[in-house]
Amino acid sequence: MKIAYAQMKIAAGHPDLNTKKILQFINEARSQGADMIIFPELAISGQMLGDTFWEESFMRDCELCGEEIIEASDNITVIFGNVSLNWLEKFNAIFVVRDGKLIAAPVLKTFLSREEEKYFYDPTNTISATKFKLNEKIYRVAFSFDAENPHNEADLYINFTDSQFESIKSISHETYYEFAHPTIKIGSVGVQNMSKKIYTFDGGSAVFNSRGEVVQIAEPFAESLNFIELDEIDKMPALKLPEVSEADKIYRAIHYGVKEFLSQIGMSKVVIGVSGGIDSAVAAALYVQVVGAENVYLVNMPSKFNSSTTKNLSEQLAKNLGCKYFVVPIQESVDWTVKQLESAQIEVSDFVKENIQARDRSSRILAAIAASVGGVFTCNANKAESTVGYATLYGDSAGFLSALADLWKFQVYDLARFKREVIPQGIIDIVPSAELSTAQNVDEGKGDPLRYPYHDYLFRAFVEENLTPEDILKLYTSGELEKEIGCEAGLVEKYFPTAQAFIADLERWWKQFTVMGVAKRIQSPPILAVTNSSFGARQESQNGVHFTKKYFELKDKLLAK
Amino acid sequence: MKIAYAQMKIAAGHPDLNTKKILQFINEARSQGADMIIFPELAISGQMLGDTFWEESFMRDCELCGEEIIEASDNITVIFGNVSLNWLEKFNAIFVVRDGKLIAAPVLKTFLSREEEKYFYDPTNTISATKFKLNEKIYRVAFSFDAENPHNEADLYINFTDSQFESIKSISHETYYEFAHPTIKIGSVGVQNMSKKIYTFDGGSAVFNSRGEVVQIAEPFAESLNFIELDEIDKMPALKLPEVSEADKIYRAIHYGVKEFLSQIGMSKVVIGVSGGIDSAVAAALYVQVVGAENVYLVNMPSKFNSSTTKNLSEQLAKNLGCKYFVVPIQESVDWTVKQLESAQIEVSDFVKENIQARDRSSRILAAIAASVGGVFTCNANKAESTVGYATLYGDSAGFLSALADLWKFQVYDLARFKREVIPQGIIDIVPSAELSTAQNVDEGKGDPLRYPYHDYLFRAFVEENLTPEDILKLYTSGELEKEIGCEAGLVEKYFPTAQAFIADLERWWKQFTVMGVAKRIQSPPILAVTNSSFGARQESQNGVHFTKKYFELKDKLLAK
Repeated sequence: MKIAYAQMKIAAGHPDLNTKKILQFINEARSQGADMIIFPELAISGQMLGDTFWEESFMRDCELCGEEIIEASDNITVIFGNVSLNWLEKFNAIFVVRDGKLIAAPVLKTFLSREEEKYFYDPTNTISATKFKLNEKIYRVAFSFDAENPHNEADLYINFTDSQFESIKSISHETYYEFAHPTIKIGSVGVQNMSKKIYTFDGGSAVFNSRGEVVQIAEPFAESLNFIELDEIDKMPALKLPEVSEADKIYRAIHYGVKEFLSQIGMSKVVIGVSGGIDSAVAAALYVQVVGAENVYLVNMPSKFNSSTTKNLSEQLAKNLGCKYFVVPIQESVDWTVKQLESAQIEVSDFVKENIQARDRSSRILAAIAASVGGVFTCNANKAESTVGYATLYGDSAGFLSALADLWKFQVYDLARFKREVIPQGIIDIVPSAELSTAQNVDEGKGDPLRYPYHDYLFRAFVEENLTPEDILKLYTSGELEKEIGCEAGLVEKYFPTAQAFIADLERWWKQFTVMGVAKRIQSPPILAVTNSSFGARQESQNGVHFTKKYFELKDKLLAK
Repeated sequence: MKIAYAQMKIAAGHPDLNTKKILQFINEARSQGADMIIFPELAISGQMLGDTFWEESFMRDCELCGEEIIEASDNITVIFGNVSLNWLEKFNAIFVVRDGKLIAAPVLKTFLSREEEKYFYDPTNTISATKFKLNEKIYRVAFSFDAENPHNEADLYINFTDSQFESIKSISHETYYEFAHPTIKIGSVGVQNMSKKIYTFDGGSAVFNSRGEVVQIAEPFAESLNFIELDEIDKMPALKLPEVSEADKIYRAIHYGVKEFLSQIGMSKVVIGVSGGIDSAVAAALYVQVVGAENVYLVNMPSKFNSSTTKNLSEQLAKNLGCKYFVVPIQESVDWTVKQLESAQIEVSDFVKENIQARDRSSRILAAIAASVGGVFTCNANKAESTVGYATLYGDSAGFLSALADLWKFQVYDLARFKREVIPQGIIDIVPSAELSTAQNVDEGKGDPLRYPYHDYLFRAFVEENLTPEDILKLYTSGELEKEIGCEAGLVEKYFPTAQAFIADLERWWKQFTVMGVAKRIQSPPILAVTNSSFGARQESQNGVHFTKKYFELKDKLLAK
């Protein structure tokens, strides 16, 4: 039996477009002599649809599309995912059809994700092997939805695990799987989003033999129609899979994600504020690769605090990239704003003046340029800044998309290494600084209050491991902190000579994370995720800061020493 | 048996504060001779904590607090909700304790909400009557978690349904309940929030007799310790409950929500941009009542398009309210921005100039004033504008909180009627207008493109009923549209003399709702909810606009006529 499997790009929310594509793939597979073709789960609707799943007319539209596919199944067995309704419940279902009709009861998928639980009824367990006759032979085809085969005997397993890219997964995901039967794993590619979450789907479609070895694999992040001969699967040797570094995978996912998301929202012109720092430089290099230098507008917006060092680095970056480059100073406008406020008897502090600069850049200049050229402007925040809200709301935290906000600062530097030929070395070497006051003078080596080589890892423990100051203080007390959070040995002692200094820093940033950080993230742009703990996926409350009883006990003990 | 029930204000995320309060209530109840005291579910942690529920040290902190309460239960039976952990799962549990120990197995609550499913393990069903001896008598106390009692015989039911305020509920919620045993319903008050959702909790604590009648009720939106004699419950007559209008309930909920939310985030100074229109006027009147006129800063920010009509109305409003009032013109800054862009060879269209004005007001002026006075600035958007993104991102859609964004325009007018003594009649009478161009000249009766008497109801059908253009066109064709969506009869014919005009309008706003509306809502402020379908609770994707097959069929039929 010749089997086709379509790693298709799903347009979430567009059953018409997906159906058209499915019909094309069916024709292509049939013309190449396939007996069966397999599509991913929810291939007609897409997965990340949120409350659209409550629209009954949308769901019925998907069902009508499913009927078109059933009608087009002459001489080929078509296995595809779609929504399914009865008068009480909605299901995430897999259909097996041929010659215009269902040839097996729909397989009602049990939940894999919390998202699904909200919208679909859980059939508890209806998964069993489906038998059907083909070329005078009976085949038993069974379905699985997670990392192993159930124990049914079957000639073929089809595994539906359409899940978003995460940088920690191996490229084929194969290490997670325990398949003891010939198995075709089928996934989709594309970008799907909901609220602030944007996920790339890398496909991960592959064929496994009964020894659990990958014998065929589809190119990740690419739509493809693939073929395999069922009887050959167990005769095929294990494929040698390429080793891919984490930075490589992340760059590929981000590049793909930005490209597809822009195309989904119908945008191709991108405005980027460039400061001469690393984040905006990496963003600029990334977007130039995605939409071409002719569609990227780099804008440097100096105030009196910006050094010629960073102004020159920005200009050099634009030259290297071959983009349009604009210098739009903000000092006059900032001064005018302060003057207007002061003449209304409102006193404006230096700190407020810092934020006036940031908002002036994004909300006054970048938003207006983006609207004027018919494009969007970017948010270049990284995950460390986002954790503690080290950005100004409606200022540098604004933009249509945060492409780098699921990357720690060290990962942004990792990506910069891909772009050595265009990112001036000075940008990589310079101290990270917002340059919003004389206290952040880069030429004097002064910069952000964040010490990334430590704070990157501390914040990762907060965000990705759900550790709180109690846990951190326990690790600090036992001397295991650096090892546990993953930062360089000796740094804690170096940055914080006393327990008091350590605790002051810990409390400062925990408070920033749980108070201002939350308020700012609630209004931040959507985030391109490369982990399952991006801020786009978090549920956070504005409840103020809390320290546990045990934290205070540990703190008292440490300070009493 | 004398029973106390504490309708307590829960500080979500602050087990220390909640525990302190619970201990006070226990002492108070004991000193008044109560044999038992009842607290709401999750009284120690709060409910809307989002990913804080993943923090094991936080959960253990709540358990430690629970132990304090157990230790304080000398001579009084204490029934309280808390989290409960074993080495595998987390539970939302009810504890029954006395004299320093559990006197019944913890009652593990089954889910009432989708939120809970994500964080808590579902024990499926462990609810049964608990017996305990008191004053030589055995009492059977049972628990219920929804609108009716299970069929167990019991001397007393305790009903935990701590749910947020919704304007459609009756003030005591009593019409929803079918209790056939003496029942004490216990809820909390306060404000809890997660992401963009802000809910007020009105308490709804009440005592019901075996005939299902309310015999005692706690004041809504107020913390209180209440007492009832068990043996008296069935002898008590039904209470006459006051009739409260929906507008009354909404105003009360919004007033309470704003007050509590400000107190939670530690803010008391409020900056409001006032345009001379209805939304900002209602916001101003509301905040003055909450924080006092001395803490409200009204700011009028005219450009050359603002009429003296609205400028005068703004000033009159400020006078009536007795607030600080500032006029900060934006024309110079807008002109300067356009000049800067044009000198960089960027052409600025009239439409872009409209949005430059809106961002100048919020991000340049209001944000700077709020920061300077140590306060926040408000977003005054209503639900109709929010539906279709009729606001500028980082402009009038910005702010710390959208207090009115779960109210349709007609509901904003309803609230204005409460404030007749301070809101100038001209503000109620004037045509709604953004005054961003000569096309929106209020003195010529020109204004917003939204025809609220129809669009309010169309959008409500989209948002609250999940109707799509297919459904709307079906209703239009059958002549049932106005009745079904609830707008005034005859309006559709009046606004749209032809099917073509009707369809053009429908497609325009459906597209705005599902494309730009979504993009803007993802970055909007949190919303004070008065329904269970506020935009704060929606899950939306940026997938572009979609019309179903059946929609196109209906449209073709209508246009062929």
